[in-house]
Amino acid sequence: MSQFLHVNGQRLWDSLMEMARIGATAKGGCNRQTLTDLDKVARDLYIQWAEEAGCSIRIDTMGNIFARRSGINNQLPVVMTGSHIDTQPTGGKFDGVYGVLAGLEVIRSLNDHNIQTIAPIEASIWTNEEGVRFSPAMIGSGVWSGEFDLEYGHNRRDKQGDTIKAELERIGFLGEVSCEPHAVKAFFEVHIEQGPILEDEGLQIGVLNGVQGMNWYDLVITGQPVHAGPTPMESRRDPFMGLHVIIDRLYAMIAEYAPWSRITFGDIKALPGSRNTVPEQLVIAVDLRHPDQSILDEMDRRFRDIAKQECEKLNLASEIHDEWRSPAVKFNEDCIESVRQSTNALGYSHKEMFSGAGHDSVYISRVVPTSMIFIPCEKGISHNESEYAKPEDIEAGCNVLINAMLEQANQDVSH
Amino acid sequence: MSQFLHVNGQRLWDSLMEMARIGATAKGGCNRQTLTDLDKVARDLYIQWAEEAGCSIRIDTMGNIFARRSGINNQLPVVMTGSHIDTQPTGGKFDGVYGVLAGLEVIRSLNDHNIQTIAPIEASIWTNEEGVRFSPAMIGSGVWSGEFDLEYGHNRRDKQGDTIKAELERIGFLGEVSCEPHAVKAFFEVHIEQGPILEDEGLQIGVLNGVQGMNWYDLVITGQPVHAGPTPMESRRDPFMGLHVIIDRLYAMIAEYAPWSRITFGDIKALPGSRNTVPEQLVIAVDLRHPDQSILDEMDRRFRDIAKQECEKLNLASEIHDEWRSPAVKFNEDCIESVRQSTNALGYSHKEMFSGAGHDSVYISRVVPTSMIFIPCEKGISHNESEYAKPEDIEAGCNVLINAMLEQANQDVSH
Repeated sequence: MSQFLHVNGQRLWDSLMEMARIGATAKGGCNRQTLTDLDKVARDLYIQWAEEAGCSIRIDTMGNIFARRSGINNQLPVVMTGSHIDTQPTGGKFDGVYGVLAGLEVIRSLNDHNIQTIAPIEASIWTNEEGVRFSPAMIGSGVWSGEFDLEYGHNRRDKQGDTIKAELERIGFLGEVSCEPHAVKAFFEVHIEQGPILEDEGLQIGVLNGVQGMNWYDLVITGQPVHAGPTPMESRRDPFMGLHVIIDRLYAMIAEYAPWSRITFGDIKALPGSRNTVPEQLVIAVDLRHPDQSILDEMDRRFRDIAKQECEKLNLASEIHDEWRSPAVKFNEDCIESVRQSTNALGYSHKEMFSGAGHDSVYISRVVPTSMIFIPCEKGISHNESEYAKPEDIEAGCNVLINAMLEQANQDVSH
Repeated sequence: MSQFLHVNGQRLWDSLMEMARIGATAKGGCNRQTLTDLDKVARDLYIQWAEEAGCSIRIDTMGNIFARRSGINNQLPVVMTGSHIDTQPTGGKFDGVYGVLAGLEVIRSLNDHNIQTIAPIEASIWTNEEGVRFSPAMIGSGVWSGEFDLEYGHNRRDKQGDTIKAELERIGFLGEVSCEPHAVKAFFEVHIEQGPILEDEGLQIGVLNGVQGMNWYDLVITGQPVHAGPTPMESRRDPFMGLHVIIDRLYAMIAEYAPWSRITFGDIKALPGSRNTVPEQLVIAVDLRHPDQSILDEMDRRFRDIAKQECEKLNLASEIHDEWRSPAVKFNEDCIESVRQSTNALGYSHKEMFSGAGHDSVYISRVVPTSMIFIPCEKGISHNESEYAKPEDIEAGCNVLINAMLEQANQDVSH
């Protein structure tokens, strides 16, 4: 690369704050759930801004929005960026919308500098990333990438029984463009980390190598419900006697695969759940994550062995129910390298890392070369009205984005 | 004692089986909850049998029933036995009603043998021992013993809002005798063990020395709710990281006080209880028991220390809420000795033991010299339709009872 651009950080910050007024909550967060009236206001504002920046707009049948800035050769696959503008009910001002407005800022900055890219540039908004109003999450990017079919996407219902299709029509965002991959050379998404690592280590940029694979299980341990008083300890088949050893061994196992391994026991239920009865059954939700699928698979096998061994020792029955699996994602090496080079050239402190949470990039990466850029967020807090990222980090992430996109858009098309 | 009586085991068994038809369930158990129409049928049958055996009947203001067989000197304090005839919704044929009908069989057998006791004999039924329809449990014996006042007892309501007093009136068992201790020399209760010890050790009789003290707590461990994906293990304040160590140390502590120490984690709740969020809080019900109050107090102190130490190590907050305490009960030495002598003289294999569960005897022992007799029940199962005790054990327990009562009723009144 011959030169490194800097975006207009103040303009990007101002746009973020203006967008944050749409659905602003008393506690300083944002409640702008997908396909609501507020979402429509935000979409309309985005389109207005993108058109003012000279973009042409296309809307697909899932309401995904693509704002295109022409290149020198408009026959070339586009270089795309984007994220989502829907929020959690008590969401923040940065999750998703930062990546959306960073895409707009890329286009505005290219305009400022009168730069013509060889390939066209696109900034995008993906419908229903949060999965709060309509389940599952990331459905706009999921249909586009072929993870779900259009009919499935259209027929998701909220709690009132309204479908995505009906709500898209109602707010005027049921587009006519087919929701399927068009020619995309590379996709980048810039996002707040939603975790504490960058802040804890005092770093500015996360160069993402992929997304953790995750397995969700219910571990079910069955013993014998007996009265808490008359039954001697050694006569009991007490699921807690197995559980505490299993948990101990699982934490120890996870430590072996540090630093990217994770285990979370998010929920637990005792049956019958009577204070003076040894539980007949414990059901524990287990969430196991690692960015390397082969390690995740190894942890999966060891988890099963540990549960089996410890329960057998105590004459307890154990079952593991597989609730959900999301395979590890390895981002595209060429896209990662574009992010890495931009980060280095701009002189930002950084770290190669993995996303622990899902993003639109997970589905998009299945059909398009993809990578992501993280910036720190305060205390790692997200999905919360107190979510915060510093203006200088907001700007830094967008600087990395614009240079990575430029590098891709201006790459020699012959190779 | 000059002679050792044997009761009519077949008659006792037949009475048990006849009573079990009142509220019989399809699975062979009994659903005869307190102060229902079925309870009235059972009470009426009991009174009919007792009157046929020559007893006079008194009913107190809590519906407790006393069937009295005159002695040589009716001015002397009575020697009493009894238990309850109410059951759990899916209860068995033996819990409580065995002790009631054993009392009747004592009177019938004394009649068979034309034995006149010096002191009068009483067999009793105590209202609402189970505490299922009306909470708390053991309320008939509790009011009688002064643990609760009469107004409190009368105003307990079931889920339909009906009071004990109204239901006593409705079924004709709101008696006129004041519910308070009359002159009782000794009280004995024979009961199925409701635990596995006697069966496991192949013994016929448990000579009870007392009832375990029990403390109920809620242990509350508070950490920080963070996302299961992005948050490294070492940055977490995860209540499960504390809990499994605390549980491990508590089981180890309990083993130091074997064989009568008990700890039970009967229920657990995770908040917010989301599969992909580290719980902010765990609330664990802890039930701690020991028959020696000083040891129970020591376990209580150590429990608090362990929870505090382990949580502090991990930067977790911990609180222990005291939910309920029932002090250890030490039965009367003279009554225990009567049971022990009878058991030895009859040649039954036996064990000195403690009750792990509450019984009417707990409250009665506060105002009257008391002890209990246990017989084995199959696999220790109780509060269950499959509850079972063998006819020979039913008879053995009643043989111990009659001789212990005789010994008390014929003791030299001058000492």
